Amino acid sequence: MNDGDGGAWTRRRFLGLVGRAGGAAAVYETMTAMGLINLPEAWSGPLELPAGSGAGKSVLILGAGIGGLTAAYELGRAGYRCEILEAQERAGGRSLTARRGSVITEDGDRGVSRQTCRFDDGLYLNMGPGRLPYHHRRALHYCQDLGVPLEIYVMETTANRYQTDKAFGGRPQANRRIANDTRGYVAELLAKAICQKSLDAQLDEGDRERLLSLLKVFGDLQGEKCPDYAYAGSTRSGCAEPPTVYQACGAEEKLGFADLLRSEFWRHRFYQPVDFEWQPTLFQPVNGMDQLVEGFKRKVGQLIRYRTEVIDIRLRPDGVDVTSRTATREKQVRHADYCLSNIPLPLLHQIPANFSDDFGKAVGRARFAPTCKVGWQANRRFWETGDEIYGGISWIDDMITQVWYPSNGYFGAKGTLTGAYNFQDDAVTLGRMGLEERLATARQGAVKLHPEFADDSIVPQSLGLSIAWQNVPFQRGGWAEWSAESTEDRDAYARLLEPDGRFQVIGDQVSTLPGWQEGAMMSAEHAVEQIASGLRLGKRPAVLHAPDSRRVAQGR
Amino acid sequence: MNDGDGGAWTRRRFLGLVGRAGGAAAVYETMTAMGLINLPEAWSGPLELPAGSGAGKSVLILGAGIGGLTAAYELGRAGYRCEILEAQERAGGRSLTARRGSVITEDGDRGVSRQTCRFDDGLYLNMGPGRLPYHHRRALHYCQDLGVPLEIYVMETTANRYQTDKAFGGRPQANRRIANDTRGYVAELLAKAICQKSLDAQLDEGDRERLLSLLKVFGDLQGEKCPDYAYAGSTRSGCAEPPTVYQACGAEEKLGFADLLRSEFWRHRFYQPVDFEWQPTLFQPVNGMDQLVEGFKRKVGQLIRYRTEVIDIRLRPDGVDVTSRTATREKQVRHADYCLSNIPLPLLHQIPANFSDDFGKAVGRARFAPTCKVGWQANRRFWETGDEIYGGISWIDDMITQVWYPSNGYFGAKGTLTGAYNFQDDAVTLGRMGLEERLATARQGAVKLHPEFADDSIVPQSLGLSIAWQNVPFQRGGWAEWSAESTEDRDAYARLLEPDGRFQVIGDQVSTLPGWQEGAMMSAEHAVEQIASGLRLGKRPAVLHAPDSRRVAQGR
Repeated sequence: MNDGDGGAWTRRRFLGLVGRAGGAAAVYETMTAMGLINLPEAWSGPLELPAGSGAGKSVLILGAGIGGLTAAYELGRAGYRCEILEAQERAGGRSLTARRGSVITEDGDRGVSRQTCRFDDGLYLNMGPGRLPYHHRRALHYCQDLGVPLEIYVMETTANRYQTDKAFGGRPQANRRIANDTRGYVAELLAKAICQKSLDAQLDEGDRERLLSLLKVFGDLQGEKCPDYAYAGSTRSGCAEPPTVYQACGAEEKLGFADLLRSEFWRHRFYQPVDFEWQPTLFQPVNGMDQLVEGFKRKVGQLIRYRTEVIDIRLRPDGVDVTSRTATREKQVRHADYCLSNIPLPLLHQIPANFSDDFGKAVGRARFAPTCKVGWQANRRFWETGDEIYGGISWIDDMITQVWYPSNGYFGAKGTLTGAYNFQDDAVTLGRMGLEERLATARQGAVKLHPEFADDSIVPQSLGLSIAWQNVPFQRGGWAEWSAESTEDRDAYARLLEPDGRFQVIGDQVSTLPGWQEGAMMSAEHAVEQIASGLRLGKRPAVLHAPDSRRVAQGR
Repeated sequence: MNDGDGGAWTRRRFLGLVGRAGGAAAVYETMTAMGLINLPEAWSGPLELPAGSGAGKSVLILGAGIGGLTAAYELGRAGYRCEILEAQERAGGRSLTARRGSVITEDGDRGVSRQTCRFDDGLYLNMGPGRLPYHHRRALHYCQDLGVPLEIYVMETTANRYQTDKAFGGRPQANRRIANDTRGYVAELLAKAICQKSLDAQLDEGDRERLLSLLKVFGDLQGEKCPDYAYAGSTRSGCAEPPTVYQACGAEEKLGFADLLRSEFWRHRFYQPVDFEWQPTLFQPVNGMDQLVEGFKRKVGQLIRYRTEVIDIRLRPDGVDVTSRTATREKQVRHADYCLSNIPLPLLHQIPANFSDDFGKAVGRARFAPTCKVGWQANRRFWETGDEIYGGISWIDDMITQVWYPSNGYFGAKGTLTGAYNFQDDAVTLGRMGLEERLATARQGAVKLHPEFADDSIVPQSLGLSIAWQNVPFQRGGWAEWSAESTEDRDAYARLLEPDGRFQVIGDQVSTLPGWQEGAMMSAEHAVEQIASGLRLGKRPAVLHAPDSRRVAQGR
């Protein structure tokens, strides 16, 4: 075994000697002392407010989304008296899971529409957030704390597909072929450039040799020396024929490089699973994302006043007065020492209020992003039995953008699929259609990935669902659309982190993770900390990195 | 939206018109007719032998590993009378799950040793195969058929680590940093070469532009045009600080390129998860791999004669005579019409038999690969709570090679870890040690990945386990070591696919997937087909791709 350069060898040998003399504990202590081990900083749990510290103080929370529920739960633990006003007939906001009997209401250009989910009993589909990344510590914490069991969410399997009409004769290609043939070509071209000595200015000879060794493995290249390195296909891209005792897996013919480039797969989110928020390991609540909402409701459900719409907000020196209207159009005025608003900012902006000028302006700055989903019940799990796809997402150069396969119920009889999840202009276009037209459009896209989508007995039209979040009353979009490049956005965001008197905005909309439940929890934590300090936190830190919704919420 | 080049646009538009006129079904039919959809060929289920076709015929099966169990099950369904002789006191062979009370027996250079597993009740660890790839159709089929529930096996999370003493000051680095910083540097260097026009011979201008666009996303490069493309770090590699409302995720400082190259991470299996057998989605049986064995036992368990060692094999014109010896040293002779041997080839070679010369020589050619595992019980899931690691494997430039984190029991109190899994010389070295020395060696490696391994109260020595498969009686290794480059290996392998009279070898050892249960099932299927045809299959196909154990069984 090669022990590398002299320095490393010495350290290694030294630690070996320490180990033989004093065992593993001695090695650890020595490594710590030598600075060889450093522990990552991480979120270490919710704020532990002193028990009873909130006694006698009241907090009115507007909106029973994840931000409001988290705030109510944490404040309640410290003795604050909380009440939650919720305009809709359910809690959770965008954390919505459709199952038999669920109603999706929209109020868009075509007026009010109500869909009732008719999935078979036991089937469900997340119409809002659907995944919990491993580094969303707050979301994972609350699932544990609230007794919400989790299971693995599969973001990517190499059996997933990408389809475009621009290349491959229109045929969908397996993720493994696109990903690994691309690695192969990239490695081959870079090896060629190195062999041609084109990069001698950037690399010394030792690095060149090591990089060639790396590229050979990185791209599964043939050849052992310059100029022989070449990409000739790889079993990483799959087998040309299913293996038998007579025939081991042989590499499928590589995709043509020009065809790969023409396909522009990288412009269609193919590499989204590489970005931090979508890297494995991801989780999902067993039985739907609404199980997290149910978990919170077990703690603070009794504090929620449903179908209670806020119609006026008055900041007072000693607190906040909130006027609301119930479903029976009864008006009520509540006074509380503090008020936290989980209401989407564009809707808050429309509610009469006596905000200070700068705060009101910041509230008015926020836009919400349009986003649509389509949901299908499939009566056969054809993607598993026929196509060896277990979870993950297929990407498509089509307005449906993507198809999600279920990360639950594997090998079962039926399942649900996300048949479209799109953004920006595509979401606006889809959201302007009626349900039948949306489903027809989604089906026409999906059939290019899987012919089974053409068969109504497998994927019944009558069980199709859709939500255009920009049309949903009291939501009006998927997330706050902050741009890290915009000075106005940065200023508005920074202002919204601070209270206006005793009034504060919460939710993922005022977090650096817009569109994520983790962001809502992060924001609630911030607001709780401010209230607990009596709004006397002193000088606040500057906003060092403002949120970038395009990157974080929808992926590039 | 850009519809691409003229040809694609025409097809797209045509299909759009078909869709509007006739709906999605019409689009599908048209696409099929145009050759735009092709369906992958795949294994479609076990051989369906006519019911009762085996009536009156007997098959003696030697060894109750997965190959023998599969053959007995399938032959039994067709009416063959089967009996299975098993030398050990348990079925399953290498498909071994350790749990409280399990005994691991070795008989190596140091003589006989017996370890009894003392894990807490409910904890277990797979000491042999541990994963089922999505394309191992037979394995997934039998799990369904036998009622063995599956759950996701996580092969890789970007929180996994790689450690070497040769770079990074010896500090373990997160998978996400190594993987994504490497992508960044590779993309940057290739972009530089393109901008310098070094690859103009290989790429026309259109391809150059498209490739630069690809590289920007592939490597998360800064810059919009030549020569500005540069890798400046990426949030794909993680956040420098945990995000707060004041600070969105900012990229951690990129690793130094020279340091990355010096680390030689690619020589230490870092890219194994990219290879076909280990690509997501993978599964594992809930409650351990032995649940698959239990599933088979529910069907054919009554046919197994335990502690019955084969000591002589005589091929006869009308069948096979097998002499065995029971634990009480009682000799028995059985006659059957056919005999299938699941016995590891090097051990079969030592049993007196009247094989034909060429068959006997082929049997004698096979070597079995040494491989060792170490197992730990951990009394805290420190890798989850502290290091955000949920499943997957950390790689290390150390003789332990790798540490596996459990893909089950997430967020629980305790768990089990594979503390070493190694090959070749490292496996020989570890296998020559006694248990305490193996555990001390494994601990000294693992502590470089996680300091908690130094703490006996967290990872107790007294609960550590190890298996050196080359020392295990009746196994003597992890898998058949076939080289696809060796003519002798290819010839021996081809010969072993054919019976010697009424005697045939089965198991993953005579499949193109050595070391995998899928291979054992594939081999059993082949043998069943031969028996069902009365060994009159006619001209057999040539062996087109011989197995390559180094690649398929242990990864590169």
